[in-house]
Amino acid sequence: MVNVKGKVLSDDLFNFCVDVLTKLGVYKRDSEVVSEHLVLANLRGVDSHGAFVRIPHYVSALRQGVINPKPKIKKVKEYANAGLIDGDGGFGPVVAMMATELAINKAKKSSVCIIGSTNMSHVGMLARYTLKATESRMVGMAATSSPVMVVPWGGRKPVLGTNPFSIGFPVNDGNSIIVDMATSSVSGGKIAVLASKGEKMPEGWALDKYGNPITDPKVFLDGGILLPFGGYKGFGLCLSVEIFSSILTGAPYSVYIKSGWATQGGFIVEVIDVSSFRPYEEYQKDMVDLIKIIKTTPPAEGFKEVLLPGELEKREYDKRIIEGIPVYEDSWEKVKGVADELGVSMPILR
Amino acid sequence: MVNVKGKVLSDDLFNFCVDVLTKLGVYKRDSEVVSEHLVLANLRGVDSHGAFVRIPHYVSALRQGVINPKPKIKKVKEYANAGLIDGDGGFGPVVAMMATELAINKAKKSSVCIIGSTNMSHVGMLARYTLKATESRMVGMAATSSPVMVVPWGGRKPVLGTNPFSIGFPVNDGNSIIVDMATSSVSGGKIAVLASKGEKMPEGWALDKYGNPITDPKVFLDGGILLPFGGYKGFGLCLSVEIFSSILTGAPYSVYIKSGWATQGGFIVEVIDVSSFRPYEEYQKDMVDLIKIIKTTPPAEGFKEVLLPGELEKREYDKRIIEGIPVYEDSWEKVKGVADELGVSMPILR
Repeated sequence: MVNVKGKVLSDDLFNFCVDVLTKLGVYKRDSEVVSEHLVLANLRGVDSHGAFVRIPHYVSALRQGVINPKPKIKKVKEYANAGLIDGDGGFGPVVAMMATELAINKAKKSSVCIIGSTNMSHVGMLARYTLKATESRMVGMAATSSPVMVVPWGGRKPVLGTNPFSIGFPVNDGNSIIVDMATSSVSGGKIAVLASKGEKMPEGWALDKYGNPITDPKVFLDGGILLPFGGYKGFGLCLSVEIFSSILTGAPYSVYIKSGWATQGGFIVEVIDVSSFRPYEEYQKDMVDLIKIIKTTPPAEGFKEVLLPGELEKREYDKRIIEGIPVYEDSWEKVKGVADELGVSMPILR
Repeated sequence: MVNVKGKVLSDDLFNFCVDVLTKLGVYKRDSEVVSEHLVLANLRGVDSHGAFVRIPHYVSALRQGVINPKPKIKKVKEYANAGLIDGDGGFGPVVAMMATELAINKAKKSSVCIIGSTNMSHVGMLARYTLKATESRMVGMAATSSPVMVVPWGGRKPVLGTNPFSIGFPVNDGNSIIVDMATSSVSGGKIAVLASKGEKMPEGWALDKYGNPITDPKVFLDGGILLPFGGYKGFGLCLSVEIFSSILTGAPYSVYIKSGWATQGGFIVEVIDVSSFRPYEEYQKDMVDLIKIIKTTPPAEGFKEVLLPGELEKREYDKRIIEGIPVYEDSWEKVKGVADELGVSMPILR
């Protein structure tokens, strides 16, 4: 991910992803949901969850039977305010989006709804689901458990995933506050980037495979382990995500989650209808005022401005939707290898 | 809080608190709810939220009219899964416990319920409410916004509270996992203790009143400001607590929350019925197994064991319920001053 090869337009990238996935037997409609998800991640600048990084993994998972291209997704439990979906081994973004839409529809009728889902592949960027809730003027929360890579606070063996969660609050048209974070100190991908640059990492990020503190990113790449963010507080959150996503839903947890780039434990999404508590217009007025208070806080030394959660991603989106998505040489080559094998044309490079 | 004066039994301390509060015109039943809350905090080792630290503040707030001793608490909104309570300026622990019990009863009938409350004093230790949910085999979440003391990440002026939240998961009789944390780096009280001992504090905890980083706790006591825990991730959580507790419920937020030891912004509690997702026994079996995986993780250097969130507090409870609650000289004297004025006997010192 070092040298920029050029840029591709989001529509071109979307069509390319759809072509690749349908060639591998994925339903047309599902291919579109997954492709829209990947391109949205790229547009928001979250390239680690975008098309160029993920397509090679998703393709190999489809070929190895890790992802079911034609799943029979089922509602296992359904109540007015809760439900459970079995994804039948299908694409995570498809199953999780179905859970999110179900939660939104139920919350519209009855204030709040929580839907869990199990048995699906990597659900991608959690902001996708909370953004979806905010588009309906609803508050959204989403969390997912992932393969073990993180120690519990005070331990030296990984028994928890990077376990991300997201919270989305609607503000006004096209704007929202989107918290989206791993509960680990940092992502493994970020450490890999430092290793490729030959740089050190700060203390408190990671341990070697024996559980000893390290600052050399290369040592991390040999079976290294991540620490939770923010010490014991981050551990409390990491564990909470594991319980909500896996234990409450009945999905695999901890060491029982299959390792891999395309695997996931369980997924849970909650949607809350603002208007059950107060008129949306009153909520919005206070949100705009609170945002003003935060944005006008004088910046600390070393900062140019106070940024809201999701603000940088929104700026990147507004830029990339016009100028295109930057592509890096190494990931271009990897994706081209896949495309050539399948006989699919690469998106136009601009 | 340095020299131990002796110990008091929890029942004696409870009766003492009830005597003090009823003398000041608080309803008998409300006095019992507040006293039970304070004593539970002491039993769990959370002395910062216990009787000896809080009684002098609560008494002066009652005298100044900051707390209404005889509130007319009202349900402002009520749905099957959501509701809003107006506390009429009454005691926080009373109003928040009412919200929690309402949420539990509604979640029993319809899977999940969120209740907000506004217009009440300091709600105390959030673990009280999530513990209550776990006693009914339910998952509980609680959050509250508090007077400004924390900068947004990258800012140098406090516009957010220490904004704590708690998550409680039931495990089996008498056991639960209880996450309960401020979203600030640390509590102001902890810094005051370091100042009294003449010790330094680590970088990343606090700023002086102008927003510059400091390590001298004495400088903090002169209008200092706290940082969020875990950098921008903790800020995302701190802001989320502000929005959930205040903006969703219509309570005062940010700079509009009155400062003081007995004030609070808004409060929100959510209760989730485990059995809407899977049979409780299956959930419990997996919880016990996950806990075993975590507890048997080999400890890292400098640690004796991996501790679950709330485990130390449970151990302290089991000890103090038998041996009594330690009392410190300075807080004993402060409380005695209040007791003498009211003509209430102090609890027996053992």
